[in-house]
Amino acid sequence: MRRKRFYGCYYSKWIDTLLSSGSSKECTLLSINESVKIAPAEGKLGVLIPGIGAVSTTFIAGVEAVKRGLGHPIGSLTQMATVRLGKRTEGRSPYIKDFVPLANLDDLVFGGWDIYEDTAYEAASNAKVLESSLLEQVKEPLQAIKPMKAVFEQEYVKLIHGPNVKTGGTKYDKALALMEDIKNFQKDNNVARTVMIWCGSTEVFHRPSAVHETLASFEEGMKNNDPEIAPSQIYAYAALMSGVPFANGAPNLTHDIPALLDLAKERNLPVCGKDFKTGQTFLKTLLAPGFKARMLGIAGWFSTNILGNRDGEVLHDPGSFKTKEETKLSVLDHILQPELYPILYKDLYHAVRINYYPPRGDAKEGWDNIDIFGWLGYPMQIKVDFLCRDSILAAPLVLDLVLFLDLAHRAGMRGIQEWLSFYFKAPMHAPGLYPEHDIFIQLMKLKNTLRWMRGEDLITHLGLEYYD
Amino acid sequence: MRRKRFYGCYYSKWIDTLLSSGSSKECTLLSINESVKIAPAEGKLGVLIPGIGAVSTTFIAGVEAVKRGLGHPIGSLTQMATVRLGKRTEGRSPYIKDFVPLANLDDLVFGGWDIYEDTAYEAASNAKVLESSLLEQVKEPLQAIKPMKAVFEQEYVKLIHGPNVKTGGTKYDKALALMEDIKNFQKDNNVARTVMIWCGSTEVFHRPSAVHETLASFEEGMKNNDPEIAPSQIYAYAALMSGVPFANGAPNLTHDIPALLDLAKERNLPVCGKDFKTGQTFLKTLLAPGFKARMLGIAGWFSTNILGNRDGEVLHDPGSFKTKEETKLSVLDHILQPELYPILYKDLYHAVRINYYPPRGDAKEGWDNIDIFGWLGYPMQIKVDFLCRDSILAAPLVLDLVLFLDLAHRAGMRGIQEWLSFYFKAPMHAPGLYPEHDIFIQLMKLKNTLRWMRGEDLITHLGLEYYD
Amino acid sequence: MRRKRFYGCYYSKWIDTLLSSGSSKECTLLSINESVKIAPAEGKLGVLIPGIGAVSTTFIAGVEAVKRGLGHPIGSLTQMATVRLGKRTEGRSPYIKDFVPLANLDDLVFGGWDIYEDTAYEAASNAKVLESSLLEQVKEPLQAIKPMKAVFEQEYVKLIHGPNVKTGGTKYDKALALMEDIKNFQKDNNVARTVMIWCGSTEVFHRPSAVHETLASFEEGMKNNDPEIAPSQIYAYAALMSGVPFANGAPNLTHDIPALLDLAKERNLPVCGKDFKTGQTFLKTLLAPGFKARMLGIAGWFSTNILGNRDGEVLHDPGSFKTKEETKLSVLDHILQPELYPILYKDLYHAVRINYYPPRGDAKEGWDNIDIFGWLGYPMQIKVDFLCRDSILAAPLVLDLVLFLDLAHRAGMRGIQEWLSFYFKAPMHAPGLYPEHDIFIQLMKLKNTLRWMRGEDLITHLGLEYYD
Amino acid sequence: MRRKRFYGCYYSKWIDTLLSSGSSKECTLLSINESVKIAPAEGKLGVLIPGIGAVSTTFIAGVEAVKRGLGHPIGSLTQMATVRLGKRTEGRSPYIKDFVPLANLDDLVFGGWDIYEDTAYEAASNAKVLESSLLEQVKEPLQAIKPMKAVFEQEYVKLIHGPNVKTGGTKYDKALALMEDIKNFQKDNNVARTVMIWCGSTEVFHRPSAVHETLASFEEGMKNNDPEIAPSQIYAYAALMSGVPFANGAPNLTHDIPALLDLAKERNLPVCGKDFKTGQTFLKTLLAPGFKARMLGIAGWFSTNILGNRDGEVLHDPGSFKTKEETKLSVLDHILQPELYPILYKDLYHAVRINYYPPRGDAKEGWDNIDIFGWLGYPMQIKVDFLCRDSILAAPLVLDLVLFLDLAHRAGMRGIQEWLSFYFKAPMHAPGLYPEHDIFIQLMKLKNTLRWMRGEDLITHLGLEYYD
Repeated sequence: MRRKRFYGCYYSKWIDTLLSSGSSKECTLLSINESVKIAPAEGKLGVLIPGIGAVSTTFIAGVEAVKRGLGHPIGSLTQMATVRLGKRTEGRSPYIKDFVPLANLDDLVFGGWDIYEDTAYEAASNAKVLESSLLEQVKEPLQAIKPMKAVFEQEYVKLIHGPNVKTGGTKYDKALALMEDIKNFQKDNNVARTVMIWCGSTEVFHRPSAVHETLASFEEGMKNNDPEIAPSQIYAYAALMSGVPFANGAPNLTHDIPALLDLAKERNLPVCGKDFKTGQTFLKTLLAPGFKARMLGIAGWFSTNILGNRDGEVLHDPGSFKTKEETKLSVLDHILQPELYPILYKDLYHAVRINYYPPRGDAKEGWDNIDIFGWLGYPMQIKVDFLCRDSILAAPLVLDLVLFLDLAHRAGMRGIQEWLSFYFKAPMHAPGLYPEHDIFIQLMKLKNTLRWMRGEDLITHLGLEYYD
Repeated sequence: MRRKRFYGCYYSKWIDTLLSSGSSKECTLLSINESVKIAPAEGKLGVLIPGIGAVSTTFIAGVEAVKRGLGHPIGSLTQMATVRLGKRTEGRSPYIKDFVPLANLDDLVFGGWDIYEDTAYEAASNAKVLESSLLEQVKEPLQAIKPMKAVFEQEYVKLIHGPNVKTGGTKYDKALALMEDIKNFQKDNNVARTVMIWCGSTEVFHRPSAVHETLASFEEGMKNNDPEIAPSQIYAYAALMSGVPFANGAPNLTHDIPALLDLAKERNLPVCGKDFKTGQTFLKTLLAPGFKARMLGIAGWFSTNILGNRDGEVLHDPGSFKTKEETKLSVLDHILQPELYPILYKDLYHAVRINYYPPRGDAKEGWDNIDIFGWLGYPMQIKVDFLCRDSILAAPLVLDLVLFLDLAHRAGMRGIQEWLSFYFKAPMHAPGLYPEHDIFIQLMKLKNTLRWMRGEDLITHLGLEYYD
Repeated sequence: MRRKRFYGCYYSKWIDTLLSSGSSKECTLLSINESVKIAPAEGKLGVLIPGIGAVSTTFIAGVEAVKRGLGHPIGSLTQMATVRLGKRTEGRSPYIKDFVPLANLDDLVFGGWDIYEDTAYEAASNAKVLESSLLEQVKEPLQAIKPMKAVFEQEYVKLIHGPNVKTGGTKYDKALALMEDIKNFQKDNNVARTVMIWCGSTEVFHRPSAVHETLASFEEGMKNNDPEIAPSQIYAYAALMSGVPFANGAPNLTHDIPALLDLAKERNLPVCGKDFKTGQTFLKTLLAPGFKARMLGIAGWFSTNILGNRDGEVLHDPGSFKTKEETKLSVLDHILQPELYPILYKDLYHAVRINYYPPRGDAKEGWDNIDIFGWLGYPMQIKVDFLCRDSILAAPLVLDLVLFLDLAHRAGMRGIQEWLSFYFKAPMHAPGLYPEHDIFIQLMKLKNTLRWMRGEDLITHLGLEYYD
Repeated sequence: MRRKRFYGCYYSKWIDTLLSSGSSKECTLLSINESVKIAPAEGKLGVLIPGIGAVSTTFIAGVEAVKRGLGHPIGSLTQMATVRLGKRTEGRSPYIKDFVPLANLDDLVFGGWDIYEDTAYEAASNAKVLESSLLEQVKEPLQAIKPMKAVFEQEYVKLIHGPNVKTGGTKYDKALALMEDIKNFQKDNNVARTVMIWCGSTEVFHRPSAVHETLASFEEGMKNNDPEIAPSQIYAYAALMSGVPFANGAPNLTHDIPALLDLAKERNLPVCGKDFKTGQTFLKTLLAPGFKARMLGIAGWFSTNILGNRDGEVLHDPGSFKTKEETKLSVLDHILQPELYPILYKDLYHAVRINYYPPRGDAKEGWDNIDIFGWLGYPMQIKVDFLCRDSILAAPLVLDLVLFLDLAHRAGMRGIQEWLSFYFKAPMHAPGLYPEHDIFIQLMKLKNTLRWMRGEDLITHLGLEYYD
């Protein structure tokens, strides 16, 4: 039997031999006898984080708490979820962590950069996300994490200011300094592999320009202090040059440019982004597919947020908000396909607001009003009020992305990891393709990718066999 | 190439030859060169409805309005939705109605039974769902629909009373009378095919008993006026004996018993049910899969409804409410799989309330409070307020079920149509299987079934080919 | 017996004699044997309205509908409310309209100005506040109202543009033209008295300046086209110069300046304002007094609105929004008295947002989140979602203000009418005093003023006499 | 000048001389030169509480915390509120606690009864209202409070069961035992005065009957174990017989019967009740007066609650819920006066639901939907979601009632204290009168009573003097 060659060069040399092209007319979807070869997860995994704030300290403190049996890593697919294999009646549903070879929590080592000098313990205390009684129990490892000096530019993040920054030299010099930081971290902690994940602030909106086109123009730009090169891009460059997979939790442009995507492919490094999908957008990508599933029209969708953490403060700046707004607004268009369903979605009025509201701190609240219409155009309304916690929702995403990027790396997968779209408000995707925002398609894509890695049948939910 | 025999005897003789067994180890999912044979949709399609109330008159008036260009059949997949074929990049997304041969709206002919003598026009006017200015424009066809005398028992629906009922004789005599009604309707309207769909009230809760076991015991029971045989079961019996596919829009037991399921299979008739999934449960089956997708725990889910239509009045009776509550409560368990995820869902406290509240009429409101928890157990809350319209949401479901049941009938599909689970709060399913409540899996099942009918590739959302 | 002289010169010559000073130590509050002399409401009452839009046409159409028995003037105290007299046990609660001599609805005659040429019928149809079936029944009188050419300046209202404006000449010339309009309206309609009420747009924020100080400087300014003189001020000037009481339904500065307040006093004309208190602020002035009554602290109050009418469009301009924001924000400070209750209210974070959201039209929605705290500082939250209708709430206020201003005029009351604070978001008040925002104190003030007019005992709710 | 005799015999001998009757035609409201004579608050004040549960332990722990400077007594008028004296411009607003002679927090001594043996510390820990870190700091005084054996009958509170109850003997014997408890408590703690306040469970609904008519019939009934005599009535009897003022925080009938009201008057004891007005009803009595103030109609008001504390558990019993429902439903009728405003309020459909929902514990949530209508009958909706904390809202009410009842006692005021209506869902009132539910009138009554006690002018909010 011949198989269609539907996974490709991204997955590196050792699966290339596995694939033999077949006529897509005959058999597109298939079971795979051999699984993908994945290098084992031996040794320590370094986790390097630009931005030691509410999200990253909640993530680190949580991992330490879980290791001590003080809590469950709820919200994390790598730690909690199962994957169904075979038929519904077979009852085979192993945990993901038992199904694919992930790094163990005990092997994670943390480091990072921040513009404030606070240790992770102090930063976590200020963030007031976790109760102090819990923080006390993981004080020791948190206190040991002292942020390295950050690469920072006030023009890119207007409303916060901190002393712990690299000064002097060109942007290129700063990139070299970051690479030196990475090397020292790896050596000091004796790590076998490293992943970098951006948990820093939202930078002001900018678009890809000529300087972002090629690696050469990008490096030249850094040497010339080109204003179009943002700090987050310097981190991404430093990571990739150091052989470190990179994930982007903010909506920043960062590595979503040809220069850095080409670099990732060339170095066989997996990357993913952008913008953790946590509160309101998470719910939006649940609800919108549901309305579309039922062919219910939408006349308007108004989303507002109140939050009082550093993120809220940064987004008070219109430039940073613009970056965020773009990713937040895009999801509906891609899910609803107004070009296919003009009667239902062409005239949809979509607005997103973020309001800095200090009384709430990290306990963000998202309120949505959705004006839908049904049979003969009759209007109905849905209000959703989500009393969430920003960092509590984001922390498990950080963990999963770290572990999955490391897995992908060991499996020889490189470039954009579209199967990790599940975690992002603005999923990166192949050029010419559109991003997939429907969270259920995203999840199926993620789990079918895991099944594919292990040579298990993919799942289509046809299920006619049960009525045989 | 050999194909696995994964669809079977339910799909009647002409697909049997199409199937040849293959090793499931080699190739489970596949493309099918030949499509299923489907008889053409020629002639008129009779639609017989027990219950000429808010839902059915909104459905009928809507079809008449759509035929006259007065509105769009929003909410109906058969009329509005497309089905994606092949790869995302192929851009093939025909309308479902162009993809499979459905009956045309112009060919629908309506009839029904009710305990009140009101014509469909009068019933629609009383229901106050549609504006009178619209109703006036479809007055003629609505006024022509005079409900036939209903089979009714006060013990099964306590809080409404009407004069237009069949009296005298045993339950079996009433079944014969219904069969006579069906025959006359078919003859008078010169219909080629007929479908029956229950839009009547919720009956009091009862469980399957010995009388429901076999066709013989059931017929014997009707002759003896066995109290365990509900009016809705007499309708289902009459439909199936008349060669008419049957759908159940209420949570009643009805045809979900061996006697009637066997009868359907034996007569090659497709059936489906139970309980239209419209407002709050529709949203619940969107949200719950989303929380599970993200491995967010749920401590409690409190759902309350206020509504003032006849449905609300009937559900004021604890017996009828019990029937409804059972179907409304069951969805979470099946979606969340607490046995697989005890930390997340084992202790979930789920409560559903329905309150008769006359000021609202048909404009039902569903309010949900959901207590979720994330990373390390931190609690969050979601409130959803759905200002919906009961009959506006239900009408397109009636249309789709009528057209899909007729399609299934012409395609030789018989017995329970699990692929129509999408439309029901309590989807009927094969014995030994569990019901599928996740609306996204339901939709994929529905669309993949259509693809399968037409010999198109099924969709898995793996999509690795785009990164070739 | 001697009475304290506690009402004064504002109430004109004929009550001056009525008052005799008494020792406030002895008897402050008292019953008055003689009532205030009020001229009878004979002849027609002209109602002149700058701004023939959603609010004013809903008001006019409503009055016409009420006159024809097509609806009730719900929301209007002058038409629906009673006033309790004497003890609770006396059972004396006449309707306000029977208690004080108000103009009759049949005697109202309407006219106005607008930048669009639409008749009141066309404007009402466009506004989509009232159903077309109702509008048809009052089409005739509405169609007869053709707006006169407006005084308008784009700098003061940025986002709307219309052709029906007075051009050429100085601001003073325009004032004279308005006075000519008033005279012609009075003559054409044979009215005995006239009232003007501003129902136009919100102008951009500006503060009182030197030109607003005296009548002389104001007139000089108009002649010089001083940019500090807003269109609404030209209307107010024209009204007062024509002997017409003036009310301001918008938050504009308008007649809240010494030049025009002195003019009103000098001409014995009552005036009031500013900004109709309708949706969210109405609720806020209910709730805030309640929290204060119970000594519950407030950490934050976030208010957001979505609306899609012309008002929403105008407020999209930051300049106009600033004017509105000022009045909307001020209410909490005055009600909560943070200087008296620093622990409870000093750190209150109050934010108000208005979002233009076309899908809603006039059916505005206001959503509030209130973060309160109680015993030992424990936090609690209240969410209020008000699905209101802007013009439906405003129309009865227009009616009451017209009738009460006319009453006050006939009763010889002049200058600011603080007893009408009940109707305004930013009640005008005597210099040196603070505005009263608590809606219950406002109502008591209003009703006690009516009691005082008719010589009835004022009410204190002490009520110890019932336990005698 | 002569004064109307509008306060009377309830205020005991020493104010009798103060009053001289006047013609109400001349002068109803007046300033009083002499204040009421009030005995000083010397010595310790005993506070005896039937029901050592969430509310009472939050109250006691809070008082101890406030004494130690660990928190503010937020929500308490006696501790936090001011009372305005004289004109708005005088700036005289002393704290209530400085204006009238209240007992000092340091002089309070606590005791109580409960069916469980838990100390107040253990009960507070179980209730999970206050954080354990706070409880630890007041552990000592809380641990010292060991509940005395309770008088309890399962028929009156169905769903809880406890061991710490008085057994044997008639109801009269139990009353004597309670009186013995009181005497011992007073002696052991060397208290100068005592107040009793019911913080126990809601008893099943029962109406006043013959046995409740006179003291003689009541005592006879207790000796005969008459089932119509509830446990709470035995406590009230014991309190009054011991010279102890009594307040009732539950909706129980208790002392709202002639036998006990006569006893209170005879012994010169002030009493008050019933049912602390805390969460949803507190908001309802804010909002309803507001809608009425604006003459907005109400078509329906649906209120639902979810709560998981012992109160929620008890109210799961339909008998107890009936008692609660009665008081919760009554408030709207009295506030809205449908007999006076039939167009607006005659057809109001009002429903109240309480749902036991364990995930929430004491953090009760009340959700209201209010269907209002305005101008010409157009409908609007308001939703209120109150995320409250039952005991946090109730604790300061307990404190105020204890201190005010003691004040009233020392001021010679006896029988029902209507001026404390502010604190109750179902305020007790003079026979023939209706209860006052409007929270703003209640507050004015309370404050004017305090002003009256101290000989200050009452406030009417006429305020015309400022425009002198």
